[in-house]
Amino acid sequence: MRNFFWGDSVANGAVRKRVLILGGGFAGLKAAQALADADVHVTLVDRSNHHTFQPLLYQVALAVLSPNEIAQPIRAILRAPNTQVLMDEVVSMDTAAQRVTLKSGTVLQHDYLILATGSTHSYFGKEEWAHLAPGLKTIEDAVEIRRRVLLAFELAENQMQETGRHPALNFVIVGGGPTGVELAGSISDIARLYIRHDFKHIDPAKAEVIIVEGSPAILGAYPPDLQASALKQLAALDVKVRTGARVTDIQPGYVMLGEERIDSVVTLWAAGVQASPLGKMLGVEVDRRGCVVVDDHLHPAGHPEIFVCGDLAAATSEGKPVPGVAQPAMQMGDYAGKSITLEVQGKQMQKPFHYFDKGDMATIGRKAAVANVKWPFKGHLSGFFAWFTWLTVHIFFLIGFRNRFSVFRSWAWTYAFFEEGSRLIVGDQTLPGWDVQDKPEGHLTTRPIDE
Amino acid sequence: MRNFFWGDSVANGAVRKRVLILGGGFAGLKAAQALADADVHVTLVDRSNHHTFQPLLYQVALAVLSPNEIAQPIRAILRAPNTQVLMDEVVSMDTAAQRVTLKSGTVLQHDYLILATGSTHSYFGKEEWAHLAPGLKTIEDAVEIRRRVLLAFELAENQMQETGRHPALNFVIVGGGPTGVELAGSISDIARLYIRHDFKHIDPAKAEVIIVEGSPAILGAYPPDLQASALKQLAALDVKVRTGARVTDIQPGYVMLGEERIDSVVTLWAAGVQASPLGKMLGVEVDRRGCVVVDDHLHPAGHPEIFVCGDLAAATSEGKPVPGVAQPAMQMGDYAGKSITLEVQGKQMQKPFHYFDKGDMATIGRKAAVANVKWPFKGHLSGFFAWFTWLTVHIFFLIGFRNRFSVFRSWAWTYAFFEEGSRLIVGDQTLPGWDVQDKPEGHLTTRPIDE
Repeated sequence: MRNFFWGDSVANGAVRKRVLILGGGFAGLKAAQALADADVHVTLVDRSNHHTFQPLLYQVALAVLSPNEIAQPIRAILRAPNTQVLMDEVVSMDTAAQRVTLKSGTVLQHDYLILATGSTHSYFGKEEWAHLAPGLKTIEDAVEIRRRVLLAFELAENQMQETGRHPALNFVIVGGGPTGVELAGSISDIARLYIRHDFKHIDPAKAEVIIVEGSPAILGAYPPDLQASALKQLAALDVKVRTGARVTDIQPGYVMLGEERIDSVVTLWAAGVQASPLGKMLGVEVDRRGCVVVDDHLHPAGHPEIFVCGDLAAATSEGKPVPGVAQPAMQMGDYAGKSITLEVQGKQMQKPFHYFDKGDMATIGRKAAVANVKWPFKGHLSGFFAWFTWLTVHIFFLIGFRNRFSVFRSWAWTYAFFEEGSRLIVGDQTLPGWDVQDKPEGHLTTRPIDE
Repeated sequence: MRNFFWGDSVANGAVRKRVLILGGGFAGLKAAQALADADVHVTLVDRSNHHTFQPLLYQVALAVLSPNEIAQPIRAILRAPNTQVLMDEVVSMDTAAQRVTLKSGTVLQHDYLILATGSTHSYFGKEEWAHLAPGLKTIEDAVEIRRRVLLAFELAENQMQETGRHPALNFVIVGGGPTGVELAGSISDIARLYIRHDFKHIDPAKAEVIIVEGSPAILGAYPPDLQASALKQLAALDVKVRTGARVTDIQPGYVMLGEERIDSVVTLWAAGVQASPLGKMLGVEVDRRGCVVVDDHLHPAGHPEIFVCGDLAAATSEGKPVPGVAQPAMQMGDYAGKSITLEVQGKQMQKPFHYFDKGDMATIGRKAAVANVKWPFKGHLSGFFAWFTWLTVHIFFLIGFRNRFSVFRSWAWTYAFFEEGSRLIVGDQTLPGWDVQDKPEGHLTTRPIDE
């Protein structure tokens, strides 16, 4: 058993080169796929056993899709005979010795390293905000957000039944980027469309969704006409947008914008991201966010055997910074995998990395979106047509036929029957701050339910 | 808003009777459905926001189905205008005053009470075993079992890669009833069929699944020929069965049968159940397991306004005890609902409760099962045909067209392509006892992966 994988030797007697990929996101997967037929050993390490299709994570958080529709075991995706997958975590890296130590104790010696461990939430040093305002990066995060949002309506129903009133159903979303906008639109959809008739005492449609954005505009990366369109579409969904407003404190049950207090039954974090700490472990130059500065071949300075791909790379293409989203991550991973394949074959190095930008899209709830399309045509789309484009593109890029089919079915069902697909509350029944909110005196009276 | 639900009055000016249903399992749901058109107010309280189709829970635990395929929000099932659903927990019951107090503080006054809170695991007083050997009652349990089973293979792969050996992949299942047999067969299926080719270092097919049953036979409620058939079918799946063997201790990494120690990377509990503690709260006669002794109209002695249904009831039908499974639970719930409907209409009381027994079925992995059919024909089925019957019946009884379709699709996929549907590990990466198991000295050596 021991040598089942590593014991095979190359025909000419040379030792096969070992490629270590850290991270099973878009960049890591694409790199492994590009190396599937190369004459190398590939090891991919990820903390989780599954690849998550992050652009649809908010749909799990907001009860449209279920986790297994947008996540798949990495082992099931990477089946090439030259590739092994380890579910493990990096403890330390020795770039000089080309050696990485994992939590289980495994030490991986390698000839090439592809570092693609992405980014995580940044609470700007306020780590105590993390459990009060969860962000959205993993399946676990999505299930937790779903739990909180659905639970808020349940608790309000209970309290209405008990006392005749309930705390304002305010959902505050910190950050007005694509994730913030998607979360806000979806919560509004849930409240107004999907669960509206499920409750007897409260009116879910009275929920308020508020986006708080520090900069002067939401969707900062989009052109002004699409920002304006997004604002209009959000207004149609009754989502309030507060731009130029900085959150100064988050407490159970409310957030502070300077002196102003906004009650909030559920606060979500879509504001800052920071690079994975593995970037700094490399011991090379990183930028302000902790992203690794790479040259035009995705190498950090002085390390032609290392590629940094995806969110974690501070890369440029034609002089412009490459954004930290899925498309460039895939392209970088593919570039790194192909570069190594060529090098191992003794062929000429690839041209510098070039980001082929097809554009950006953000949905704003059911049938609403903005799209800044750059390929196959150039144009700004809004509303239903942008939304439909978004749907098509995301189905197309989902990994695995089965998932595509399943997501298509769930969407068709949700959009046709106004019924959400995956509305389970899994976990406990507490919300931070609920107990301290607006609890009238003497709420243990025996008010008969028939009064 | 306050009186949206309770404020309506009956045409003739009389006050509408209030029915309180505790528990959203099969019995509680059926009772609520039987009362949907009755001239009463119905309140159903459950700790969780969803109804779980328990007969298929083991398929979530073993990665065939995803949670939302077998669970649905109770609100989405019970939409009758006279019915409200509260996600809450019972704190105390006052049967004299006909009043139940919930955790949120809500006090529910009622004219009728239908108690259907079922049963939970019993560790026979050894509560410290609970986290070492999880049982299978809720979606949370199922996700936890799935995490442990899949993680065991991942950890073994890591350790094999690191040290060249790994702990024996023993899965010990305590209890040889239907749940134990279903869990055992499914783990064997996973190891031998579904994930076999996913690993490079370990051979998942070498996993050992061991059922430990205290009594002399597995599937105690089945006739001897089906017990024998089940044993044969389990043997074909390489499942070891130890009957007449009592677990005396459970520790991280192993279980003890008297003096004998069996290593176990994952131990699962399918042995004892005990009645929900609400049975005792009623202050009436309960049996040894805590089940409420009821008369032939499902009333506890002296309480014609209370019905106890499902697992929690120690009921008899034609002198024989009614088993604690789904079919009689549904029939009891329906009976209670109809009794109240008739009583409110001033009509004659129903005949005593009679359990219409259609038979029992237990699956033993893919294409294997036993069925003791009593209706529409009498007969003992084994093997593929029993399995196919099981499949058909369970699809038929699943609540909601959407779930049926989805489960059918997942099964078709799994059984046609040998690929499991929902193999995500959600949660942390630790297994109790893994660290203390079989760890060779000096495992932090830098063995190159190419050796």
